[in-house]
Amino acid sequence: MKKYVYSFNEGTAAMKSLLGGKGANLAEMTKIGLPVPSGFTVTTEACNEYYNAGEKLWNELKEEVLNHLANLEEKMGKRLGAVENTLLVSVRSGSPISMPGMMDTILNLGLNDETVEGLASATNNPRFAYDSYRRFIQMFGDVVLEIPKYKFDSILEKKKDEKNIEEDTDLTAVDLQVIIEEYKAIVKREKNIDFPQDVKDQLFMSIEAVFRSWNNPRAKVYRNLNDISDTLGTAVNIQSMVFGNMGETSGTGVAFTRDPSTGEKKLFGEFLMNAQGEDVVAGIRTPKPIEELRSKMPQAYDRFLEVANLLEEHYKDMQDIEFTIENSNLYILQTRNGKRTALAAVNIAVDMVKEERLTKEEAIMRIDPLQVEKLLHPTFDEEELKKATEITRGLPASSGAATGKIYFTPEDVVAAKNRGEKAILVRMETSPEDIEGMVASEGILTARGGMTSHAAVVARGMGKCCIAGAGEIRIEESNKFFKAGERLYREGEYISLDGNQGIVYEGEIPTTESQLTENFVELMTWADNIRQLKIRTNADTSRDAEKAIEFGAEGIGLCRTEHMFFEESRIYAIRKMILSTTEEARRNALEQLLPMQRQDFAEIFKAMGPRPVTIRLLDPPLHEFLPHDEEDIKQLAEKMEVSYYQLQEIVNDLKEMNPMLGHRGCRLAVTYPEIYEMQVKAIIEAAIIVKEKEGINVIPEIMIPLIGEIKEFQYVKGIVERTAKEILVERKADLQYLIGTMIEIPRAAVTADEIAAEAEFFSFGTNDLTQMTYGYSRDDAGKFIGEYKEKNILEKDPFQRIDRKGVGKLMEIAVKLGKTARPNIKLGICGEHGGDPNSIEFCHLLNLDYVSCSPYRVPVARLAAAQAAINNKDQRK
Amino acid sequence: MKKYVYSFNEGTAAMKSLLGGKGANLAEMTKIGLPVPSGFTVTTEACNEYYNAGEKLWNELKEEVLNHLANLEEKMGKRLGAVENTLLVSVRSGSPISMPGMMDTILNLGLNDETVEGLASATNNPRFAYDSYRRFIQMFGDVVLEIPKYKFDSILEKKKDEKNIEEDTDLTAVDLQVIIEEYKAIVKREKNIDFPQDVKDQLFMSIEAVFRSWNNPRAKVYRNLNDISDTLGTAVNIQSMVFGNMGETSGTGVAFTRDPSTGEKKLFGEFLMNAQGEDVVAGIRTPKPIEELRSKMPQAYDRFLEVANLLEEHYKDMQDIEFTIENSNLYILQTRNGKRTALAAVNIAVDMVKEERLTKEEAIMRIDPLQVEKLLHPTFDEEELKKATEITRGLPASSGAATGKIYFTPEDVVAAKNRGEKAILVRMETSPEDIEGMVASEGILTARGGMTSHAAVVARGMGKCCIAGAGEIRIEESNKFFKAGERLYREGEYISLDGNQGIVYEGEIPTTESQLTENFVELMTWADNIRQLKIRTNADTSRDAEKAIEFGAEGIGLCRTEHMFFEESRIYAIRKMILSTTEEARRNALEQLLPMQRQDFAEIFKAMGPRPVTIRLLDPPLHEFLPHDEEDIKQLAEKMEVSYYQLQEIVNDLKEMNPMLGHRGCRLAVTYPEIYEMQVKAIIEAAIIVKEKEGINVIPEIMIPLIGEIKEFQYVKGIVERTAKEILVERKADLQYLIGTMIEIPRAAVTADEIAAEAEFFSFGTNDLTQMTYGYSRDDAGKFIGEYKEKNILEKDPFQRIDRKGVGKLMEIAVKLGKTARPNIKLGICGEHGGDPNSIEFCHLLNLDYVSCSPYRVPVARLAAAQAAINNKDQRK
Repeated sequence: MKKYVYSFNEGTAAMKSLLGGKGANLAEMTKIGLPVPSGFTVTTEACNEYYNAGEKLWNELKEEVLNHLANLEEKMGKRLGAVENTLLVSVRSGSPISMPGMMDTILNLGLNDETVEGLASATNNPRFAYDSYRRFIQMFGDVVLEIPKYKFDSILEKKKDEKNIEEDTDLTAVDLQVIIEEYKAIVKREKNIDFPQDVKDQLFMSIEAVFRSWNNPRAKVYRNLNDISDTLGTAVNIQSMVFGNMGETSGTGVAFTRDPSTGEKKLFGEFLMNAQGEDVVAGIRTPKPIEELRSKMPQAYDRFLEVANLLEEHYKDMQDIEFTIENSNLYILQTRNGKRTALAAVNIAVDMVKEERLTKEEAIMRIDPLQVEKLLHPTFDEEELKKATEITRGLPASSGAATGKIYFTPEDVVAAKNRGEKAILVRMETSPEDIEGMVASEGILTARGGMTSHAAVVARGMGKCCIAGAGEIRIEESNKFFKAGERLYREGEYISLDGNQGIVYEGEIPTTESQLTENFVELMTWADNIRQLKIRTNADTSRDAEKAIEFGAEGIGLCRTEHMFFEESRIYAIRKMILSTTEEARRNALEQLLPMQRQDFAEIFKAMGPRPVTIRLLDPPLHEFLPHDEEDIKQLAEKMEVSYYQLQEIVNDLKEMNPMLGHRGCRLAVTYPEIYEMQVKAIIEAAIIVKEKEGINVIPEIMIPLIGEIKEFQYVKGIVERTAKEILVERKADLQYLIGTMIEIPRAAVTADEIAAEAEFFSFGTNDLTQMTYGYSRDDAGKFIGEYKEKNILEKDPFQRIDRKGVGKLMEIAVKLGKTARPNIKLGICGEHGGDPNSIEFCHLLNLDYVSCSPYRVPVARLAAAQAAINNKDQRK
Repeated sequence: MKKYVYSFNEGTAAMKSLLGGKGANLAEMTKIGLPVPSGFTVTTEACNEYYNAGEKLWNELKEEVLNHLANLEEKMGKRLGAVENTLLVSVRSGSPISMPGMMDTILNLGLNDETVEGLASATNNPRFAYDSYRRFIQMFGDVVLEIPKYKFDSILEKKKDEKNIEEDTDLTAVDLQVIIEEYKAIVKREKNIDFPQDVKDQLFMSIEAVFRSWNNPRAKVYRNLNDISDTLGTAVNIQSMVFGNMGETSGTGVAFTRDPSTGEKKLFGEFLMNAQGEDVVAGIRTPKPIEELRSKMPQAYDRFLEVANLLEEHYKDMQDIEFTIENSNLYILQTRNGKRTALAAVNIAVDMVKEERLTKEEAIMRIDPLQVEKLLHPTFDEEELKKATEITRGLPASSGAATGKIYFTPEDVVAAKNRGEKAILVRMETSPEDIEGMVASEGILTARGGMTSHAAVVARGMGKCCIAGAGEIRIEESNKFFKAGERLYREGEYISLDGNQGIVYEGEIPTTESQLTENFVELMTWADNIRQLKIRTNADTSRDAEKAIEFGAEGIGLCRTEHMFFEESRIYAIRKMILSTTEEARRNALEQLLPMQRQDFAEIFKAMGPRPVTIRLLDPPLHEFLPHDEEDIKQLAEKMEVSYYQLQEIVNDLKEMNPMLGHRGCRLAVTYPEIYEMQVKAIIEAAIIVKEKEGINVIPEIMIPLIGEIKEFQYVKGIVERTAKEILVERKADLQYLIGTMIEIPRAAVTADEIAAEAEFFSFGTNDLTQMTYGYSRDDAGKFIGEYKEKNILEKDPFQRIDRKGVGKLMEIAVKLGKTARPNIKLGICGEHGGDPNSIEFCHLLNLDYVSCSPYRVPVARLAAAQAAINNKDQRK
């Protein structure tokens, strides 16, 4: 029979996929002798089985749980449901990949009308007992019975108002008994059941609730956002309770072994005396810095410090540790690798190499490449910041800078974002329901909660700027303003958040580019030494090119020439070209564009210095350059001195049923060779000029788009070569250049041997290749791709991550055939996948020479390429 | 050194690609001892070299030609350019594949102001000599110097008018001398050169002209139309002249060894006394039936009969022979396999098997599969024909029946066709310039010319109805009418042509289906016994299905269910479905469609009997069912009782940038499973009904379109299976059915192993597969595909013939992978390529089980499949 339940002393850290992260760590900590309250774990396999079984617990599982419970009772000398020596347990979720705040937890399970009395007399602390029971009913009601939490909260608030007190801790035992009765009445009213008094019912119902919570909408959103598979499942950890709320020698806290914002090597955390853990996490009471524990309870603090070091050493990573002190005894409830900002991640990884805890390769593997991009994003302009008016301060919960308009609900933030506005989410505190609004926001400001509150943890995970616990402001969500001092800040007004300092400013503050830290530069150097892929960038201007070089780009993989045509002065010439009816008129119009294109290319060549530059000749269909609505056509007709109807007819003539598959790319050059002739002329002349003026040996790589057939390539190559030769002869210049092609049409992939015989390089245009391989129009697939993901037909949007099975297979075929015909053919990728770590790994495995991505993705790609090399040491052919 | 020139006695029939068809046959005839005038052939390789060398003759070639000329002179005892014993030669083109009327010919070369006098005195026939010189100048002027022919003609006509004579033969020697001077004056005026008197210049200029003519526009159109490669080149045959115009014991003619219209075994041809061959071909004088030669020149006739039999026996095919009688001596100028109607082709092939000249396989190989389709086309309804009014009669030059409006120029015919009209081209005589008009016409009527005139030969090649030489009518092209008796028939009036009888009728005459002849049925039976591919049909109605069965279809390979929705009563329901905003409303609308679809399927199943039927579930995007222009939307809105704006919004919402790659096929079923549920219900219920009522064991093959990913197939298969099961359970019925998929998306091809694990059959949808593999939108590619073919980038429109290298490669991958996963998977094709012989051969080589094509293509496919089997005996794996 399959084993579905493991005692903490049966597992290890390696059993994460079975026991979940939390369960595996509890087991590991138990194994290395840390003070962990005993318990057992119901496995993730049980969770999956639960879903397979139609969302029901089955009898064998229940028995196995009860057996482990009996063992636990024996070990603890307590019994669940007993009045004397009553055992209370926590029930927590724990999936193989940490999903903070997403899953539900139940504490104090085992309390009922009888055991609460036993607990009261055993601890000689009735207030604690009733408070525990009160909390239990509330959590059970919320998580298991799905009764809206505010219904319980409002009773508590009402009681506090009645008694005119601030803190929950000021409620007396009698108050709490009254509250308990009212809580039970809510349960009765809402669910038409009595609050379960059978403790085994409580246990099984809670286990089921944890399983169910795996598929709650928040969890799904989080998984989708973080690319976590739906099939992992969650484990359930049942652990004997210890109490941080047993009086003034008890407390609870959360601490990181290093600063999760900066990575600084010092204990970083918070605690609350006489409280349970959720008080810290939920941000309801603002906790104290962990340092203050040293003076309050020196022994416990020292013991904690010792344990923290031990854990970091053991896991070789920064730990996020939950602890509870029960009557001066320290218990470790949980440890996990701590979430951190990108900055902290880099600093910790580099520091740990210096501390000789990690090798360079291990350090590189510690960084999520996508997170690195956030390091590159702007911070406030220092000068502007000096002039800015401070509104208030809070905790610097997640670093970065953000500026945007104030909105008070996640829905409003999402709506604002959809309107194209930048929005700041301002909220009392955040909860998992708010996640979409948090995603859509530029930054988050909360009035309550600490560094480990929901808002802080989630924002750091997202790399999003967050200021938490700005307790001075008063938020009136329903009136859509917040008040700081006497001043009102209304919905739609700009504010700016400095996530590094925790300062909120009035208005919109301009930002400057972020500084690349020394540690970052060092880490990247390590990555550069390991990776085998070159990293190029997609850049259409010298400004983009310069930025990309700063980020480490080694060349341009894609310079799109069409973007150069959209400027006011140029679009006129290109439109004149399109409206021409003779080749001569077209040539005249193109003649006007030539000096501008030449200048563009010269600037780019200059910026790139000796680095290779791949220029793609005109790609989009001509109708993209023409207006389409009546008014614009009328205006243009006037300017062009043609009749409206004439122009309308041309616009209609150029319209296509499926422009994606229409008259574009090299197909234009077959019809109008003069367009590519002009572009080649501009490229070659620019290269000659830069070579002569700057002494840079430019070797342009001229890329022909949308090739599907070798004769097509030969035809267009002929145009390029003739044009280039003419100029070189005319100028008596000597210049090397390459002619290659995009591989973006399935037919090009399967006939790549023929094409490679003529083409000096291939660049995979995986955007179009994905469109044609799947038969998905990017412009239209939005209508069904969401549903495809929801129904698990697509695991991932193939426009984001290369579909290895289909698109990837065609790439494989193309690489193989291409190398057959031209063993040293230069191979790259310039689709958007070039900046996606998973796709970069695939490119590494395919033996491409380079990936090309947007400038801000260049460091991401450098790191991802290094990780690919480390992960696949012997797999690159 | 490469040999570029061959004497006729150096070659054989097998050297067709080097010597051209004509040259190889002249050599072959020389070899077997026939009376062929001596000569030599400049090879097709020389033609290609001529183009490579920049369209210039090179010295080595000229020398080689002169050496062969010297040999010829020695053999003939005559000399080119000599006044006494002057040698005259013909210069004719001859490509490896016969292109009648396309290439240019020069006769009487060697005449100049001096040799003409020698010829006059040697033959003692000055009239003949001047007439030959006159003809030579005219042909040379036209073909070599490119002076419009009518300029010469008008001089001739003027002279005839002056002298009030009808026939060229009535012109005297003196008349002709005057005409010669006027002709030379035209040359001087038009080209500013004297007419070349140097006979070697004449020869080389003529050879060049033949080479040039390979690429004249008419030749290109013909090659394009007939799928002949541009790289074959043409040979040039230089042959000593014999003269059919040396007086009343001379003559010339053309004859087929069997009737090219019916295949009847009898000599069939025409001759003209005292004439050169071009008089017969050009249709300027109306020739006499060959039988009359028997009485006029019995010896020559018998000798010709003997030669004709010899040639047919030798070539084992019906021959088309050109002959000349010079002073009672018979010369064979040319023989080739004769063009014939489809009817004749079938009859000849079957007869020759019966005569034991051919094996059945050889007979099958003799028929052009595409021609066979023409046998199936309608003929006039006999009853209607009895009531029709005869206008006039001509020669039954090409069989078939045609009805349409009168137009007098090829341009008007093309324009009419583009307007959607049926047009008959009515013309004095046709010439190669008219070819596009002939293609666009329903049929052709000429007032002049015989059975071997341009119009007749070309029309037969096209399988197009033609009546030639209807000499009673008077055509006034400029006034746009023709006159028969006193009645005028004006442009735009209907006439009808009976190509089998040569009768022209007034008005539009209804047609009946053609009868399949016994020989045809027999040939098809032979083909059926040889072919390995099954032939299915694409049929959406029981009417199509019945027609296809008559033509030999063995099943339906594609039943498109969407066409069933476009009927008035149904489109309303489908629109209601589309406009529904809830699943329930959609289901209600679909409920209305169910009985109609069920009825459709039941009829088709009944028609098909035990034959397999593949039904494709809904494929097109929903917007295809909605109106798009304002007025229609308004009307529909009214009918649907929604506001115009609401409906407009829905229409806009459904619009797609690239509908080809949009929300269609199985993607619709993922979003709206209820659509496929209704269709599956209709299929399964219809099958049950037909099984119960008719006792037919229907095994429907349910085909899911546009699959690109196995999970998508699984999802939709789930819908199909659940729906089917429900009905079968409900009805307590037992029914087998298959679920398969189209392979039409490149990704499906490269992941076919995964898909085949779940799909019971594949049907290649090569239309869409070609679109996506090439990245060509069929709707838009017209804008550049013509140019691509012109520029030799595409050899053939890939939508007509499977592109074996690209699309075919993906098919190969799919077959291989599919069979890996499911060795006995059923494989077919249902794209339009299923009716294309070349593509059918490819399907044979791919080991598909069947091809599916339109009903009229079924016999084509049966024959093509047999030919594929014969051609590739050991190549099917």
